Amino acid sequence: MTQRAAIIGGGVIGGGWAARFLLNGWDVRVFDPDPEAERKIGEVLENARRSLPGLSDAPLPPEGRLSFHDDLADAVADAAWIQESVPERLDLKHKVFSALQEVCNADAVIGSSTSGFKPSELQEGAARPGQIVVTHPFNPVYLLPLIELVPSPANDAGFVEKARDLLTSVGCFPLLVRKEIDAHIADRFLEAVWREALWLVKDGIATTEEIDEAIRMGFGLRWAQMGLFETYRVAGGEAGMRHFMAQFGPALKWPWTKLMDVPEFTDELVDLIASQSDAQSGQHGIRELERIRDNNLVGILRALKHENWGAGAVLNAQDGRLKQGTDLVRTVDEIADLSQPVLTLARAVPLDWTDYNGHMTESRYLDAFAQSTDRFMQLIGCDSDYIASGGSYFTAESHIRHIDEVHAGARIAVRTQMLLGQGKKLHLFHEMYEGERLLATGEHFLLHVSLETRRPSAPSAAIEAAMARITAARAGQPVPEGAGRAIRGPS
Amino acid sequence: MTQRAAIIGGGVIGGGWAARFLLNGWDVRVFDPDPEAERKIGEVLENARRSLPGLSDAPLPPEGRLSFHDDLADAVADAAWIQESVPERLDLKHKVFSALQEVCNADAVIGSSTSGFKPSELQEGAARPGQIVVTHPFNPVYLLPLIELVPSPANDAGFVEKARDLLTSVGCFPLLVRKEIDAHIADRFLEAVWREALWLVKDGIATTEEIDEAIRMGFGLRWAQMGLFETYRVAGGEAGMRHFMAQFGPALKWPWTKLMDVPEFTDELVDLIASQSDAQSGQHGIRELERIRDNNLVGILRALKHENWGAGAVLNAQDGRLKQGTDLVRTVDEIADLSQPVLTLARAVPLDWTDYNGHMTESRYLDAFAQSTDRFMQLIGCDSDYIASGGSYFTAESHIRHIDEVHAGARIAVRTQMLLGQGKKLHLFHEMYEGERLLATGEHFLLHVSLETRRPSAPSAAIEAAMARITAARAGQPVPEGAGRAIRGPS
Repeated sequence: MTQRAAIIGGGVIGGGWAARFLLNGWDVRVFDPDPEAERKIGEVLENARRSLPGLSDAPLPPEGRLSFHDDLADAVADAAWIQESVPERLDLKHKVFSALQEVCNADAVIGSSTSGFKPSELQEGAARPGQIVVTHPFNPVYLLPLIELVPSPANDAGFVEKARDLLTSVGCFPLLVRKEIDAHIADRFLEAVWREALWLVKDGIATTEEIDEAIRMGFGLRWAQMGLFETYRVAGGEAGMRHFMAQFGPALKWPWTKLMDVPEFTDELVDLIASQSDAQSGQHGIRELERIRDNNLVGILRALKHENWGAGAVLNAQDGRLKQGTDLVRTVDEIADLSQPVLTLARAVPLDWTDYNGHMTESRYLDAFAQSTDRFMQLIGCDSDYIASGGSYFTAESHIRHIDEVHAGARIAVRTQMLLGQGKKLHLFHEMYEGERLLATGEHFLLHVSLETRRPSAPSAAIEAAMARITAARAGQPVPEGAGRAIRGPS
Repeated sequence: MTQRAAIIGGGVIGGGWAARFLLNGWDVRVFDPDPEAERKIGEVLENARRSLPGLSDAPLPPEGRLSFHDDLADAVADAAWIQESVPERLDLKHKVFSALQEVCNADAVIGSSTSGFKPSELQEGAARPGQIVVTHPFNPVYLLPLIELVPSPANDAGFVEKARDLLTSVGCFPLLVRKEIDAHIADRFLEAVWREALWLVKDGIATTEEIDEAIRMGFGLRWAQMGLFETYRVAGGEAGMRHFMAQFGPALKWPWTKLMDVPEFTDELVDLIASQSDAQSGQHGIRELERIRDNNLVGILRALKHENWGAGAVLNAQDGRLKQGTDLVRTVDEIADLSQPVLTLARAVPLDWTDYNGHMTESRYLDAFAQSTDRFMQLIGCDSDYIASGGSYFTAESHIRHIDEVHAGARIAVRTQMLLGQGKKLHLFHEMYEGERLLATGEHFLLHVSLETRRPSAPSAAIEAAMARITAARAGQPVPEGAGRAIRGPS
């Protein structure tokens, strides 16, 4: 049977919860007195539908049904999960819980999105305190896995286990916070950083933009994949966590932040942290952790390059400078000998192009050949300005032959021949080499299209002319080995 | 002429600097009394050679020459950049600068990797104070772009500009810190978080592992791409930064961290931050920022899935659960009708598979078909256990026909036919659909190989038997439309 969640209080957080449940196949019923609730949740849902389904490598279940209710009893009827995301006022939350418990099932989980209140505070005066627990999410709720699951002694173990299982079933990472505390765990760090940031802005040391750059160009990239302690364990190198702490312990006495209420740096504290770090990361050696970290960072940085954002934009700008120093030509006029194959790609194989064996994975050969095709299109005049004017080439067919393997870090080059370039047709043959070793060939048939009609169309006269020059120069050249072949038939 | 950098003090940080300069074509000369320096720097370099070259989409220049020197004058001869990374003791740093300035060129940049000291402190008593500046990197130095470039009034503008340009030329993001302060900018946050983390561990609230999960499953993912303020601007939603601050301003008085030395939350401070945030992010609307954020997060999360690490491992576990609910079969025995095409992929098109137009990009068709091939291999018995035992299939040839376009978020399915499965040969034909709409076909010829010899070999008897069952069931089926074709020849 389809499970049912009730969302009490919409907005960005309630909408994010609604999206996570809905897209994981739950029916969702919303109670929110805000007349704008439907529109606001709709906007969050639109974002979630765009990003969440494809994040998975498996199909999500069919989306559940979303409905809005003016009556609280109606909203929570048969709900297995009730999520409260009303404003952060304890009296308001108490009222909501009281009203909820009059009408909801006694075995439903009532989770609170509170950033700051402890569960025992939320449970004060409740009819069934053991039904209420903190389940604190992070925006965007439909993408970030963390939920801080904070029970009090009033919640029994079976209830906490059930809450954890349900959160896991909709793709969350429930982090059980074993001792309740104001602001739980993550927001304590956010609050500390926020306080320090306010000082820096107020004192005129840095602007909001400079602070954001200081985060996302450096330690933010580390924290997306390892947290604070594992990062420092790696930084400590062979000497490990204890060495790191010995080095930075004294800084607690220094004015490195304005937040000076620090714990005493005792041997007991060092021992406690070093032993917890061993339990957490001791199964990996330092060299291994370094490589895991670097694989993660390369993957994250290349994802940001794809979006041309943050550290990825910095890398793309650097690539632009690096390409100026290479043999890659920009126009047909720069090609020394039009009868010969032209260099269309020169790069090293990135870590994220390889499989678990360290070999370049099948689809990345086509990735490289597609980049070579783009480069060749630029050479004959189909550059970004031309594409913006409404014409481009679409690939109709590709034929790849794998000749030899190649590993991460190897320098590869692609050289390209135009077998046919006439009217709307463009037929290319790419050869990929590592040094003199042929790795693969890619034969591609493209059609010039109008980007408006998405139908084949004639290219510009300039492109026709560039193709004609190459055709003339290549006259009499033999068809390259491997071109024009079909895959061996089944007979 | 090849530029030359001198590295004073090795270790993880000095080694990271050496790697960044070397791989960007600079000659690097190391001075480090540690007898282990050569080994330690060698290990950092090995990591850097593995990850940095392929991070770029352009070839790096040929690697520079690395040498080790016992004599300081020798190490810094003709160096344009001298990087000091000795231990964090001011007296030691003063001694090093004094010795350096006796022998180095007066126009070299002397950068200090110090985490905490202000440039004016470093410059005290120096022969040429204006030659010394803080250039504080982040580990791993060869991958993370951030360098905090902190001058004092003793450094003239031209010198600072030169330092900035040289750092940019080796792929760094130099962040100019306009007012010197203990621990610069980024380490003030790291120190605040470190102090709060020590409290949480000491008070028994959370272990190092729980703290790391609280970071990397939530806000760490946000901070890899937007920092603190841009993230909160988006969280504030339509009402923006001012609304966000009104909501969380009062928390400064609450015990949300143990670090209670907070600035006063005045209107002036709110105005200052809101106006800086407008200057930083005002060119993007909130809806646009949300989509940028989600694109970045999906890319980062999918990169972590590829490594099966952190939030990516959580997502993979969820995929495993989701696949149990689908029509995907696991073995030949589960296939209802062996004569018909079998479902080998069902998923939504992820954001990072699309180009700037929102269309699925060329190489991702092959990515999907390669996943279908893997699935078909599993069906006939070539699963991970079999591969671990030393046999597998390698793709020799692929032929892709593009029939129609598809967009991000669309649900696609691939159905696969075996055209030939006999001895070492496996010939597959994949059809990709969105609903009933045919998007592309992929024809693939594979050879069974021994993973030891990397040469063709016979598969196991179980695989032969599974293929024979399919062959028998498919007897008399016509060759599918589009199979066995060559790309139209140039003639």
